[in-house]
Amino acid sequence: MAGELWGLIIAGGRGTRFWPRSRRALPKQCMSLDGGRTLIQQTVDRIRPLIPPERIVIVTSAEMAPAIREQLPELAVDNVLVEPVGRNTAPAIAWGCMEIAHQGKAPVVAVLPSDHLIDDEPELLAVLASASKAARSTNALVTIGLTPTRPETGFGYLRCGGELGTFGDHAFHRVERFVEKPDEVTAAGYVADGRYLWNAGMFVFTADALRDAFRQFLPRSWALLEELRHSPHRLAELYPQMESTSIDYGIMERSPHVLTVPAQLGWSDVGSWAAIEPHLPPQDGGRGLVGNQVAVDASGNVVHAPGKLVALVGVDGLIVVDTGDALLICPKDRAQDVRRVVVALEAGDLGEFL
Amino acid sequence: MAGELWGLIIAGGRGTRFWPRSRRALPKQCMSLDGGRTLIQQTVDRIRPLIPPERIVIVTSAEMAPAIREQLPELAVDNVLVEPVGRNTAPAIAWGCMEIAHQGKAPVVAVLPSDHLIDDEPELLAVLASASKAARSTNALVTIGLTPTRPETGFGYLRCGGELGTFGDHAFHRVERFVEKPDEVTAAGYVADGRYLWNAGMFVFTADALRDAFRQFLPRSWALLEELRHSPHRLAELYPQMESTSIDYGIMERSPHVLTVPAQLGWSDVGSWAAIEPHLPPQDGGRGLVGNQVAVDASGNVVHAPGKLVALVGVDGLIVVDTGDALLICPKDRAQDVRRVVVALEAGDLGEFL
Repeated sequence: MAGELWGLIIAGGRGTRFWPRSRRALPKQCMSLDGGRTLIQQTVDRIRPLIPPERIVIVTSAEMAPAIREQLPELAVDNVLVEPVGRNTAPAIAWGCMEIAHQGKAPVVAVLPSDHLIDDEPELLAVLASASKAARSTNALVTIGLTPTRPETGFGYLRCGGELGTFGDHAFHRVERFVEKPDEVTAAGYVADGRYLWNAGMFVFTADALRDAFRQFLPRSWALLEELRHSPHRLAELYPQMESTSIDYGIMERSPHVLTVPAQLGWSDVGSWAAIEPHLPPQDGGRGLVGNQVAVDASGNVVHAPGKLVALVGVDGLIVVDTGDALLICPKDRAQDVRRVVVALEAGDLGEFL
Repeated sequence: MAGELWGLIIAGGRGTRFWPRSRRALPKQCMSLDGGRTLIQQTVDRIRPLIPPERIVIVTSAEMAPAIREQLPELAVDNVLVEPVGRNTAPAIAWGCMEIAHQGKAPVVAVLPSDHLIDDEPELLAVLASASKAARSTNALVTIGLTPTRPETGFGYLRCGGELGTFGDHAFHRVERFVEKPDEVTAAGYVADGRYLWNAGMFVFTADALRDAFRQFLPRSWALLEELRHSPHRLAELYPQMESTSIDYGIMERSPHVLTVPAQLGWSDVGSWAAIEPHLPPQDGGRGLVGNQVAVDASGNVVHAPGKLVALVGVDGLIVVDTGDALLICPKDRAQDVRRVVVALEAGDLGEFL
């Protein structure tokens, strides 16, 4: 096999829409939806048939690092890279790739978010294997595109161009363009059009290809990373100087060598308490994770209160989250506004609850 | 002063409409609405200017007794009478009166519920003083009638007859009849009529008058009490044989010697989480007792979650009660249905939460 496949898991976001369960020190990726494995544990579990723990690298923050190390004891200490400050995904991915390039043999890197759900794990593994072949053969940047299942306005889209060829069991296409989060009418048009895919933050490329693209499109940041490689003790000085930008905006949208593979993975970005409803165990009066639940004329509620007795009387479609010290109550259709609570806590004198 | 005034506080009800805060071992009367004194502590506090603790007797259950003794250390051990089983208010009051009769000097007894709120405490004291005079002068059973402030369908009413005379600062009337909880139209008629008063479970009579009435209307129960007086160690054998009936039904409605005094006390029976709303401290998004509360587009909620951070997003008119091990969520207009949760817990295997 020419070139090893590595996994690079980006564990950055705070998950403010999952407050109060998601906290700075125990964010969304460290949550379990069903009382079993957490999202980041599931992320590692599902790629292990293809990528052993020695070839999995995680980039995260100092706040999250203790929880991640605890939840993933199979990862070596050096495989968890801890940013001194967040600089969005481009620097995190470039740093991870640089470390992998120096450890691996002509590595191919699969970049994966740490906080998504994928129902069809065998298909994910097949897509990653095919994308790995495509990345090695073409030296392009491959983004895994998800066939949209609804006119979602919360994601970016990409438009598939002509088919370039088949690798493994999958057809790969050029990406004609990336588009930002659309409005509802535009999103419905994208779904009907058939050429548009969700841009889900999953990429496959050789470490060399990423290096070349970074050198070309974010040269100053690349120079800082090279400096860091030679003087790792200067991390806290150099890393904050990197340009804070996403891999999509900083690299993908600028590169002419981007391919995509349309995939159907049963994927969910686990974007809010409302979005995870289908993935929760059923309860009397709705779905969720509780000790016991008693419902009187109640239905369609999403409850997260592990170990607790929750009684719902005459309420429908509520999100209820209890964490011992904090309690959130919110209708499902206001799930996006949970982050406004976090803003209010930051503004008030309640930082202990963040 | 011919005859001492004694207080007899009946602490019986479980307060199932206040679940999960109200539990078998820590019922409604042992709750604080504002984080300060509990309802039963307030009951004792407000009569203390007229009645010292040595002359206050409480009748309660074995389950509640520990909490009541803890909350009222000023009461002597023997002043808390513990029923082996509940037999409604008539036996409880008769037992309390019998004990008072043997301790006191020609005592007059003021019977008070343990779980009500009274805003105008000076007026309560004045009414009790006047009723004490009336009871002593006439040897009648006096029931304190509350001038209705709304067409309430949850209470019984009594109809005032002709004025019998003035005692202290208050006019006393014969009671023409007692009426059960009315429907809404009837209740509105009662309020408009002007002769109807709420029957609030507050009575004043001499111990002798109560003894005579009990002997006449519930003779078998009285015989059991006399037996108990001579053989107190037979409590668990004799008390359960008493007829389970209320003082209203068993005595008041049958006696021809009942007087009433119309009073305005700022009284509330604290009947449900919704009923206590006006008595709670204001919070962001409603009223209640919480550690901190954050509201985003939320109003009119009643929250009881001492020490906790509660975040309400886009919800109005909810009751939210958190007790650490249990959580209740219910719209205010369904507050009466909280007892259905208790029924469900009894039916299920969740007795630990009762």
